[in-house]
Parts: sequence; C-alpha cells; structure tokens
Amino acid sequence: MIQESEIAVKFHPSGRTVFVLVGTKLYEAAAAAGLVLEQPCGGQGLCGKCRAIVRHGAAPPTPSEHRFFSAEELAAGWRLACQTQLLQPSEVEVPGESLVGHAHKILTQASPQAVAGDDPPVRKLLVEMAPPRRGSDEPDVVRLTSALDAQSDVYVPLGLMRELPARLRQASFCGTAVLAGERLLDFQPGDTTASCYAVATDVGTTTLVSALVDTVTGEERAVAAQLNPQARYGDDVLSRIVFARDNPRGLAELQQCVVAAIDQLIGQLCAEAGVRRDEIFQLTFSGNTTMQHLLCAIDPQYLAVVPFVPVLGPGVELAAAELGFDVHPQARAYLMPVIGGFVGGDTVAGILATGLADAQQPTLLVDIGTNGEIVVCAGGKLWAASTAAGPAFEGARISRGMRGSIGAIEKVVYDGQLRINVIGNVRPKGLCGSGLIDAAAELLRHGLLAPSGKLLSGTQLPAHLPPDLVRRVVEQDGQPAFMLASEEETADGQPILLTQQDIRQLQLATGAIRAGVTLLLHRAGLQPSQLQAVLLAGGFGNFIRRSNAQRIGLLPPQIERRRIRYQGNTSLAGARLAAMSLQARQVAEQIARQVEHVDLSTDPAFHSTFAASMIFPESCES
Amino acid sequence: MIQESEIAVKFHPSGRTVFVLVGTKLYEAAAAAGLVLEQPCGGQGLCGKCRAIVRHGAAPPTPSEHRFFSAEELAAGWRLACQTQLLQPSEVEVPGESLVGHAHKILTQASPQAVAGDDPPVRKLLVEMAPPRRGSDEPDVVRLTSALDAQSDVYVPLGLMRELPARLRQASFCGTAVLAGERLLDFQPGDTTASCYAVATDVGTTTLVSALVDTVTGEERAVAAQLNPQARYGDDVLSRIVFARDNPRGLAELQQCVVAAIDQLIGQLCAEAGVRRDEIFQLTFSGNTTMQHLLCAIDPQYLAVVPFVPVLGPGVELAAAELGFDVHPQARAYLMPVIGGFVGGDTVAGILATGLADAQQPTLLVDIGTNGEIVVCAGGKLWAASTAAGPAFEGARISRGMRGSIGAIEKVVYDGQLRINVIGNVRPKGLCGSGLIDAAAELLRHGLLAPSGKLLSGTQLPAHLPPDLVRRVVEQDGQPAFMLASEEETADGQPILLTQQDIRQLQLATGAIRAGVTLLLHRAGLQPSQLQAVLLAGGFGNFIRRSNAQRIGLLPPQIERRRIRYQGNTSLAGARLAAMSLQARQVAEQIARQVEHVDLSTDPAFHSTFAASMIFPESCES
Repeated sequence: MIQESEIAVKFHPSGRTVFVLVGTKLYEAAAAAGLVLEQPCGGQGLCGKCRAIVRHGAAPPTPSEHRFFSAEELAAGWRLACQTQLLQPSEVEVPGESLVGHAHKILTQASPQAVAGDDPPVRKLLVEMAPPRRGSDEPDVVRLTSALDAQSDVYVPLGLMRELPARLRQASFCGTAVLAGERLLDFQPGDTTASCYAVATDVGTTTLVSALVDTVTGEERAVAAQLNPQARYGDDVLSRIVFARDNPRGLAELQQCVVAAIDQLIGQLCAEAGVRRDEIFQLTFSGNTTMQHLLCAIDPQYLAVVPFVPVLGPGVELAAAELGFDVHPQARAYLMPVIGGFVGGDTVAGILATGLADAQQPTLLVDIGTNGEIVVCAGGKLWAASTAAGPAFEGARISRGMRGSIGAIEKVVYDGQLRINVIGNVRPKGLCGSGLIDAAAELLRHGLLAPSGKLLSGTQLPAHLPPDLVRRVVEQDGQPAFMLASEEETADGQPILLTQQDIRQLQLATGAIRAGVTLLLHRAGLQPSQLQAVLLAGGFGNFIRRSNAQRIGLLPPQIERRRIRYQGNTSLAGARLAAMSLQARQVAEQIARQVEHVDLSTDPAFHSTFAASMIFPESCES
Repeated sequence: MIQESEIAVKFHPSGRTVFVLVGTKLYEAAAAAGLVLEQPCGGQGLCGKCRAIVRHGAAPPTPSEHRFFSAEELAAGWRLACQTQLLQPSEVEVPGESLVGHAHKILTQASPQAVAGDDPPVRKLLVEMAPPRRGSDEPDVVRLTSALDAQSDVYVPLGLMRELPARLRQASFCGTAVLAGERLLDFQPGDTTASCYAVATDVGTTTLVSALVDTVTGEERAVAAQLNPQARYGDDVLSRIVFARDNPRGLAELQQCVVAAIDQLIGQLCAEAGVRRDEIFQLTFSGNTTMQHLLCAIDPQYLAVVPFVPVLGPGVELAAAELGFDVHPQARAYLMPVIGGFVGGDTVAGILATGLADAQQPTLLVDIGTNGEIVVCAGGKLWAASTAAGPAFEGARISRGMRGSIGAIEKVVYDGQLRINVIGNVRPKGLCGSGLIDAAAELLRHGLLAPSGKLLSGTQLPAHLPPDLVRRVVEQDGQPAFMLASEEETADGQPILLTQQDIRQLQLATGAIRAGVTLLLHRAGLQPSQLQAVLLAGGFGNFIRRSNAQRIGLLPPQIERRRIRYQGNTSLAGARLAAMSLQARQVAEQIARQVEHVDLSTDPAFHSTFAASMIFPESCES
C-alpha cells in the first residue's frame, strides 16, 4: 500500500479549504469546496468562462490559457479552472460570475437586473426615529413601522412587541430593524447592517451538512457536517418511516434527534465563525421528502404506501423556534418545496443550484446518496425520480465502511502497485464510497471480480495476475475477500477487507441508480449517448472517479468522460441560495411545480431493469 | 324601604333575557340586553325606525304607533320601541335593520353591498377531494389547498400540517376547511358549516364581559361577566401599570390572571350554549389601552409618563394560544386598534358600534367606566379623550359599594317614600353605581346634600323635610351618613349607609367625566347646548337614570333628556362586530387613525376645570 499525499487549497471569498491530490484540476478542487464553475464547453478550455485567480502552487499556463489571458492577466494569477493543475498548496479567488448557480444566472429568468443579495429573505434596515415628546406621542409600533417606510403593514410578532418598548429606548430610538418580508424579527441597538447570518443545511439521510453564510456579503463563514443520528432508527428512509409509524413516540424521537444534531452543528459553526446564535435570523433546509417530513415531525407514513403521497408540497416558511432550534427567537425557517413522492427539496435545490432547468441540451443530474435522485432535462422539460440506493455509498452496510472523513480510504488505484489515498494522510480506518467504487472497478479491470458480482477465489483467478494482487485475495468466513490494507497498515490493527457481501451491497446501490437513470431516460425518450452532460451532485458525487463510476455502471458508460461534471453538494448550494434570495425561492417553487415526478415503481419495466442493472458492465473503458 | 319588582324580557334572535322594572320602555330594556336600536328622532315616535315585534306584556299602542302601523301589523305585535311600555314578562323580536351598529349600516361606507356575515374573519368551506390513487399522488397540502380554490397561497400552520394526513383520511377526503384569511385553521370531518363560533370580550378595568356568537347566523348564544381579577393589584389603570413596572413578575401575573378569568368565562359560555371549546376559532378583545397591553403582557409603563406613549397601535391579530387561551389550538385572536395614550380599543369599538363617525350633527359619546372615555363628533371630525373616573361607578371605593349584580340597590326614588329596586328582587347587599347616582341626586333635590358635596347633619337640614328622610340621616364615625336600608332590611343585618366618603368618591368620578366632557367640547369649539345627541355607553351607562345623571352633573344639564340615548355595552358590541366582519375591522382601523387623541392633562385648563367639575350643579332639572 502506498499512500498519496494531499495539498491544501483555500478558496476566497468563501474561505473554505479543501485537501486534494497533487495534480488535481482547479475545477475539481473548487467542486470539492462547493463551488461549481461555469463550463459550457465541458472543460475543454474553449469558452473561457471558468476564470479564477490562483495565488500560487499552479502548474504553468496551458496554450488555451495563453489565448484567453494577456501576459499581465497571467502575471496577476488569472487562470482557467478547467486547465489549471494544482501542484502545491494554493489560494484561489473565484469571482462570482464564474459560478454556476450564481444568482446572476439563475435569477435573470425572473428579473434581468436581480443580483443575489438584492432580495434576501431577511434584510436589515438602519432606522432613526424622533423620540417621543409632547405632540409626538404615537405608539411605539407606529413610530417604528412608519419609520420603516414599508410598502405594506409591518407585522410585529407578540414576542417582539413585548420587548419593543425597552429595545427602542435602550437604542435611543436609533437602531437596526431586522425584517423577513413584512414581519419584524428584531430591533437592535446601533448599526448591525454590515452582516446578517443564515444557516443552510443539507438534511441527508446519512449525513447532515450545515453552512453559516452572511447574506449581506455572500460569504460562507463556516461549514460543518456530521452523521444524521436518525440512522440508529434505520439507515434508509423506509425503515425510518416504519419506525415513526409503529412507535408511539417514534416521530417525535426522530424529529428531536435530527434537530438536536443540526442545532449542535449550528453551535459549531457559531464557535468557528465567532457569531452568536441569536445573530442567526434564518435557517434553510433541503432534504429528501422523508427527511423534510421528519424534520417537521410530520407523519410520512403515506409516503410508504401506494400511491406514495407526501404531506408537504410547496416550500414551507415557519418559525425556527417551532422546530426547536436555538437561534434568534424570531428566526424564520424555510424548507425547500417537494416535487412529489420521495423526490423532495434536495432535488429542487439541485436543479436550482445547477441551473439545470435552463439546460439547452439533454442533461442528466444524478445526486448519489442513500436516496439517489435523478433528473433529466430535455427539450425544456424536466423529469425526476428517486431511487433507494441505500447507504452503501456513505459507508453503511459495508463491513469496513465509513463516511468520507479522516482515516477513510477514499481512492484506490492500481498502476503496477496498489495505491490508496487516505483522508487526512493517516493510517486507514475504513473504506468510504469513492474508495469502494475504485476498488471494485480495479478488481473488475483485472478480472478479480466477475461482472456477475462474484469475487473470484484463488483457483478461479485469471492467469498472469500481478503477485501484489494475488496475495491480497484472502478468504473470510469461507468466501473470497480482497485485502486493501493489511493488519500492519491499519489504524486499529485489523485488516481492511472488501468482502463478497460488500460487493453485493455495492451492486444493489449501483443497480438502483443505474436502473433509475435507464428508466428516466426512457421516459424522456433519450438514449444515454444523446446526453450532452451528466451533472454529478451530492457530497459524495464530488469524490467519485468518473472512469471508475462508469466501469461499475454507476454512470452511463456511453458518455464521454469530459461531459461528466462535478457539481458539489447541490442540495446545500440550493439551500444557501434560498437563504440569499427571495427570487431563488420563487424559482425553486416554480421548479417544484414544473418537474414531472416519475414513480419508478409503477414502471412495468422496473423490476427487470433493476435486476439487469445489478450486473456490472463487461467492459466499457472510454 | 319599598322594593319594586322586575319583569323578564327575552329578546330574539339573540336569546338574551334581561330583568327590568314594570313600565320600562322597550328601548331601554333592549339597551340593557345590549341591543341599541335606531332612533334618529331621539325617541319621539317620529321616525318609526325602532321597530320590533312584542309577543305579549306591552301596554296598548300609542297614537304615534297607530300612525306607523296598520291594524294587521299591530295585531301581529309590531311596535315602536321608544313608545312601548313593558308591563308584564315579554318576548321581543328585534329585526336586524332596527339595530344601530348593525353591519348593514356601518359597512355601507366601505362597500354598499356588504352585509355582516358576508366577510367573516373566519370562514368555513365544505371541500370534497378525490382521494389519492395511482396518477393522482399530489401532496396532501396541495390536494387540499387546490380544492379550496383560493385566490392566493393558503398557509397551513405546522401544528395543523402535522395532523393533516390523519384528518384528511378520517374524513375520507371530504370535510370542512376552516380559514382565517389565507391561513388554514382546521380540516374537520363532515359538514360543520352551519355554525362557526367566536367569543367577543369587553376587557374592562373592573368588569369583564364575554359573548359567544355564531358568526354564521349572527346569533348571540350566551353572555357572561365577572370582575376583572386584576383589581386585586390595583383598582385603576395607573396602579396596575405601576405594579407591572415595579414587580419582577408583575406583568406576567396581571396577564395570567385576566386570561384565566376570561378563559373561565369562555368555559361558562360553552357550557351554557352546549359548544365545545375547540369549536371556537376566534377571540376578539376590546379594552382600554392599558387593559389591551396587560392582556398581551406588553409593558405599558411608558403610558404612565409624559408623553403617555403606548406600544400597541393598529389592531393586532395573533394566535389565541399565544395569549394562553384554551380554545381551538389554531384559533386567532384580534385586539381592536388603539387611538393613542389611554384611549384604546374600547373607544374604537364604541365609535364603530354606534356609527358615531357618521353622525351628521354634533354628538357626544360617553363611556362611563373606571376609565371614562369621551368622544365628540362634529363637522366630520372626531376628538377622543380618556379620563380617570376611578372605579366608584362600578361599586369600588364605596363603603357598601358593589357591582350591579344580584343584591345591588340599583335604583333609588323618593316620591313621598323612599323606594329602592334591588337586582334579583332579594334583600339588598350593597349599592351599585346607578343607585349611588340616584341617591345622591335625590339628596341634592331635597337639600340633604349641599352642592359642595357636604352631607348635612341634623341641625343643618332644611325645614319641612319629610320625616322618612329625616330619620334616615344618621351619624357614622362622627360624620353624617344617609341610611338607604336599615339593618332589618338588608341581607347581612348591617345597614346600608351612604357616607360622606362615598359622596367624595362620587364627586371625584363625576368631576373627572364632567371635566373631560367640558374640555373636549371646548376643543371641538362646541357649547354643550349645541349637542344634538349624547350617547351613553358602557355596561354601566345603560342603568343610569338620565335625569339623575344630569342632576349630579355627570351629564351636561343643558341637554334635553330625550337627546341622551342609551347605547349598551358598545365596547362589547364593537368586539362582536370585529368577530363578524373583516370590513368592520377595516372601519375600526380607519377610525383609530382618524380620531384626534386629546391629552387632557396637557390642557392648561385641566386642573381648574376638574376642580370646578367636582361641585354638584345648584339645580338643573330640565
């Protein structure tokens, strides 16, 4: 085992740092940091849209970069993200106009002059009032609301009304009003308009990711993730729905534990950014239908029976306190709209963040998670389906599986020797989804794994196999297994084996996604080869090696690799947009109404397609 | 002492029964039942507007009634309320168009075709949906809201969203949606549209009065009253403001006790009408500024210091549960708008219910309570002021004072003998405000009480005084007192005396109202004699003998008695209108903005006018 090392790349203005392998393209590093860059040419260096300033650590400019930039610009660090290889620790500045999903692009549909931050759902206004005196004895509420110069009546919630007289006088009638639409959330002494915080959260079945954003500057101040503790009640959505249905306190338990976990993430974000909890005025959430129901403690049981009916439809705005969050007492919460069935707010967020609805050519969006979401856009129409991949890609149900965190084998390459990359450059503790895909692809390539999914044992192995691979084929519980790391190499002194059971789990997960893609393309009347782009989303999708994903059939092998593009965590990105812009929310609502929800289970071809999709492709290197 | 007896008069459709003395005019009996009849001619039998059907018990028709009704109509019971004397227990039907403040009149300003009940703030709609099936898998929320055919997005609160899936299925997708504006309050199985309940409450400083109304039929189903338990923290508004300010839990205690008391009234109303608490979807409240602040637990301390600034301005809609009421969990609460300073929602309600803003001639509205509210309308303008009468009219601070409930001496007449009327025809327990005024007026007339307010003792009494009066002049604690009932006549074996202290309290209360009227008329540029009408409001105002109120100077002596008209509890009537009609609320908001609030305390003439007003008029029988 040879471990490869990573370099740190820090992005501005978001401030996020990611670790990538030496030689990674800037475009991929940016995607890992949640920044998806414009790339209409498919990363060919032809359009010049994916501009960024690289401070240091990049390989010399390519000929296409010389075409797009003057010598002065190159000297200033201007580069094309699709061309630039990162060789050493770098700092990178990404201008807003290079970002896909940047409001500048998404929102132009609704209003050409709109730019993110012009219409945040929560806004702050500096207000100066004349203090009361003889002849100016208006009620406090009238004094404040008339100073706001609002177009319609401002609503002051009771909780704030109770504090208003003291607040106004402490501030000597000069301070900052915080408004969500026409609802007054707070009146703060002094001028606090320079920042306004929101937390956007991707509520995944397995993983929760929250980002603290300043909606005034657009800056992402901190990001934090942890496992969804609901997993202890069942690792997929169906088992949680059943738990909620069959246990008297089940729904409440599921809700409370996920709220507590996100609330803990909020605490981490606040600590990291030096922000107080009561400075957070907005929470936005994006999750699949089940996750959004459970977050609200809304019984999702009718999602589990034909015809799979959710309760939630359009986006929901409510009080953050109603859900149990400890942020500003008047803070608002927004949940992305649900498309239908299991296709929920995370899919809407993905379509919003990638600008998929505007795609001019047939495009596929795949968000690979415990619930896989698949969207096809063609001819101005959108189809979406959900497919139960299970949590294998997130490390669950795999014997030595783990999430993509420190100690996870996240990359496996055979180039004469077996090389692995471990997150954090430590001794490996387990295997995450991308490493699992890599390993299976390499075993398929070298004949240690049959397309049927059978791991071959000693006598069945092909001839001329390199000894380094042969010696790794071991036996566990009477079945063949492949040793990725020996007991001497691991953190816990136990070898990390890829077992026959692990391969079966991978087949189920891969088959579910692949069958979903096949059926949805069929519904859209498309052949895989007609797809001009495949957008890979999900916290996990970013870390997949495209060729390996194609080798095991997770992605259509017929697509040129350059057309497969990483989009980062689009669920989180969409939730962040919903915190930044009311128009983004309106676009999201429109998307939810516009997309045709396809219930794959009603497709007569579902079972046969799923069975066929479980078989790995014979060979498909492109 | 001779007690007079009362007869029961039951009104339809309200169903309310009141007890009045034999010979009472139907108009006054109706006012006691909260029904204020049209009387543009001032009760002269000239306009024919105050029509009603009297079932039995009335004196024969007067000549003016013969002019207005045919023989058939008279045979059917049609009468004029201003002409008809009630001699025996009666049942009376009052058509809506005879009522002042009937929405038909009030609302025509805003929209000629509007009639009460056309635009209730809470409405019910019978909804039938197709149940979910393959091909019809919309989310529950979408299925319901699209069936509502709403003009804008329907908002489903989280609490209801959680119950929605079960509710829809229990009802087999056919039931009644309850809506407040675009907010869904409930979905009930079956058709419940035949009734929809609201409770309107007059939150008085001393007395709370609640009425259960059916906003579909307009019927008043029950009325209940009790003392405001906040009185134990102080019997006027200022002492309560100080208590709330100076005690850490003071505001919370004041709020909780008044909410508990009103909630208990709601329980009584429900029991009486056979209505469940969760059938009540609306609460409306009308009170003076302080009462409305305390009901909401909003600190009113800046009301007590110059320039007397309230927190509340426009009407407030909020969740009834937020205030702590046990009605339907999604029920809404509405508080009438505040005009300014101490002039609050009860005054707005009074102007709304009496139609005062439309008065064509100079008109005075006086709501006599612990806080007296005075409104003048002239030349299309409205001025309003509040004056601290104190609770003497409601029986507090009077040695044997009590509220106008069973056992109270409510009427005192001297016609050769001293006659008293006791509410409920029982032995007297004490003296209520109307009895206090009567007694003081009779003592003034017969010279037992000097205009200065001094009760005369034996040697100072005028000559030729009837022996029945002379023997009642007794001495208590070295000061003269007047015995209304001897120890043999009372319920508790203690005599009921009118003391010198009681007279001083009456002078303070009367002087406050009288000074307020004088100053407000001055502000409006009017002489008392220019007033074409004086509208007497307040639960108490109904029971005042006009001539006696004029004798003690509580009402301007210069006004012809027929121009003084009883309006009933206009605060409650306004709150009831706000429960019936959104347009009534809009008119209320408009009134609150339109009325000029006059801060009497800033008037340089305030102190001298108040001092002068404490002296009883020398003589003024009209």
